[in-house]
Amino acid sequence: MAQPSGIVTLLTDFGIEDVYVGVMKGVILQINPVIAIVDLTHQIPPQNIELGAFQLQNAYRHFSPGTVHLAVVDPGVGSARIPIALAASDCFFVGPDNGIFNWVLANRLLASDCAADHAVALDNPRYWYTSSPSRTFHGRDIFAAVAAHLASGIPLSEMGQSVAIEHLVTLKLPQCQPTVTGLQGCVQAIDRFGNLVSNISAAAVRHHRSWFATAAGRAFPYCSTYSEVPFGRPLSLIGSHGWLELAVSGGNAQQAYGLALGDRIKLTWI
Amino acid sequence: MAQPSGIVTLLTDFGIEDVYVGVMKGVILQINPVIAIVDLTHQIPPQNIELGAFQLQNAYRHFSPGTVHLAVVDPGVGSARIPIALAASDCFFVGPDNGIFNWVLANRLLASDCAADHAVALDNPRYWYTSSPSRTFHGRDIFAAVAAHLASGIPLSEMGQSVAIEHLVTLKLPQCQPTVTGLQGCVQAIDRFGNLVSNISAAAVRHHRSWFATAAGRAFPYCSTYSEVPFGRPLSLIGSHGWLELAVSGGNAQQAYGLALGDRIKLTWI
Amino acid sequence: MAQPSGIVTLLTDFGIEDVYVGVMKGVILQINPVIAIVDLTHQIPPQNIELGAFQLQNAYRHFSPGTVHLAVVDPGVGSARIPIALAASDCFFVGPDNGIFNWVLANRLLASDCAADHAVALDNPRYWYTSSPSRTFHGRDIFAAVAAHLASGIPLSEMGQSVAIEHLVTLKLPQCQPTVTGLQGCVQAIDRFGNLVSNISAAAVRHHRSWFATAAGRAFPYCSTYSEVPFGRPLSLIGSHGWLELAVSGGNAQQAYGLALGDRIKLTWI
Repeated sequence: MAQPSGIVTLLTDFGIEDVYVGVMKGVILQINPVIAIVDLTHQIPPQNIELGAFQLQNAYRHFSPGTVHLAVVDPGVGSARIPIALAASDCFFVGPDNGIFNWVLANRLLASDCAADHAVALDNPRYWYTSSPSRTFHGRDIFAAVAAHLASGIPLSEMGQSVAIEHLVTLKLPQCQPTVTGLQGCVQAIDRFGNLVSNISAAAVRHHRSWFATAAGRAFPYCSTYSEVPFGRPLSLIGSHGWLELAVSGGNAQQAYGLALGDRIKLTWI
Repeated sequence: MAQPSGIVTLLTDFGIEDVYVGVMKGVILQINPVIAIVDLTHQIPPQNIELGAFQLQNAYRHFSPGTVHLAVVDPGVGSARIPIALAASDCFFVGPDNGIFNWVLANRLLASDCAADHAVALDNPRYWYTSSPSRTFHGRDIFAAVAAHLASGIPLSEMGQSVAIEHLVTLKLPQCQPTVTGLQGCVQAIDRFGNLVSNISAAAVRHHRSWFATAAGRAFPYCSTYSEVPFGRPLSLIGSHGWLELAVSGGNAQQAYGLALGDRIKLTWI
Repeated sequence: MAQPSGIVTLLTDFGIEDVYVGVMKGVILQINPVIAIVDLTHQIPPQNIELGAFQLQNAYRHFSPGTVHLAVVDPGVGSARIPIALAASDCFFVGPDNGIFNWVLANRLLASDCAADHAVALDNPRYWYTSSPSRTFHGRDIFAAVAAHLASGIPLSEMGQSVAIEHLVTLKLPQCQPTVTGLQGCVQAIDRFGNLVSNISAAAVRHHRSWFATAAGRAFPYCSTYSEVPFGRPLSLIGSHGWLELAVSGGNAQQAYGLALGDRIKLTWI
């Protein structure tokens, strides 16, 4: 496992209107004032664990080894769900055991040294912000404090009892499926530009030279960048996070075609 | 008074579409490049001093002693209202004297050492960003610069003439009132999750074992966390900032019951 | 040219819902973990280069010499438009050559030492994040990495081949025009408060003592601050960024008068 990078990233559904995020930063900096804190996003739709897990996996790989990723989308706060911390893929992860680390857990099996990965339940109050945490804001009272201690070099094993990684919660997500002529998947996220990000990965198409995608009765020919077709025309490409995307050159595919999360996307090899 | 923590927090109604906040950070870092700047929120509704004061008081207590809290919700910028800085509750506060520090001023009386608190009018141009400040952006031209100097260890007394703390502006806010069977208060804030935060404090209910809240003709039984009632059911609890909240388990109480800022909340002891 | 200040500012149209911005910060901190990163704004309307250029010029002058300003509003990503870096006005600028640096290029001619300014095409893969950059996210794969290297003191000339500053793309923006009785301009931006920022600069009115502005059939008398007229009344003033603004005291001029980007503003000297 890498040494701490001194960086803590934050991903939540807390929004930016309230001071929940600012308060977590206050807690982190009380514990260690030289930690660099980076916001990934706080605009996960309230309590949407799937989209939180999706955004986390797009981001964490671009940070230094030893970075602590704090992810709080936590509809079950105060209930039986377990607060955890996890060392995997040469990073640390802190948050509720509710599926938010779904992709981290999936990806770790691709790493050669995943035998060194481990997880703990955060049951040692010594590393909490307060010995009697609220039952509504573990982000402040447990997770922020634990993240700051991990980023400061306190070993993960100090934070609580080991739990088997295999027993951590994963999500049941729709998988893309092979068809006779290609693949079938769905829209798993939509970005600010109205690009429709599918659940079809770059790996799933890598042995094929070309294709067209179909969604909402419309064809999206394969391109390598947005401007390869004329302004206003649809296209499909492998987006920067490694997923097949449907887009409109210089436009907004979501608005143009009325597509929504979960809508079906068909890929046909050519 | 504590030594400076090297942290400056920012709370404004400037939003995030424009570069007003970025410009204030540029000014702070020109004066001292190693200051850690933390955004509390910039989404205070335009010119809403009451909500600014509410959010500030929820946040400041979670930062290290000696932190400088810069708060700019300033409809009277350029008018007769006085720019001030204040040492209270072991922190510094910088902003307009218009009620934004209402809760800071109320809370200081609870501290044992409040005799050491003091305030100054920011009339020493030596610590401004420019000797001829604009009349529309004191956030940049006065407050950001003063905050950076305070965070760098320049004494408060250097920044201008003393003013009596007792003469600073406070807000006339609706107070919760005792009734024959409980308390009556109102909605003072609504968070991103649609939780309705009342003006009834944890202290006001601490001698009572249980209650139910009523609002919009609907009962909200007392719980200790959101998931204590089934999904979609109403509840009331003491929220993480220490106020009674009305909520819906896994849902949005504001949308479910059409409640708004200022709406009446009744508490009945049981 | 100044030494690097250790600061990188970010201005994009990436929004805050997705993790694009967080990923760029991860790349920057991988290259140099002690860089201070400041967000200017990420809410530029998608692909609106003009508003990006406007916001950038309002902000960059308030940062220390040697700061690196990274600006990515990039509808042509992956096409023939050139990724560039530029030393001008004692700062560095990194982004696409599409007009986003329009005002930087205009302003540099006002500086005495603009002969020292220079620009390069970012064609040296040694300073990229990856030797095979994606064709959809140069913000991550080229610009963030180059900005971090510049902020760390690598000379601009290392980043790629020189290009003539005179050949960089500038925007064709509407100019304010003299009339018999004053000036005619238009709305070039609207801020969060509904203030209408014109394209009439402080310099264009500096020889005149007073005026009134007309827009949407309504007069906006000249004031020096918002509160100089009664609450709810219209006014015009020189805003904090140095442009003539139309505003409503304590209100929202955009909503009150239904004005939009590009609408005509007439100034009459008195």
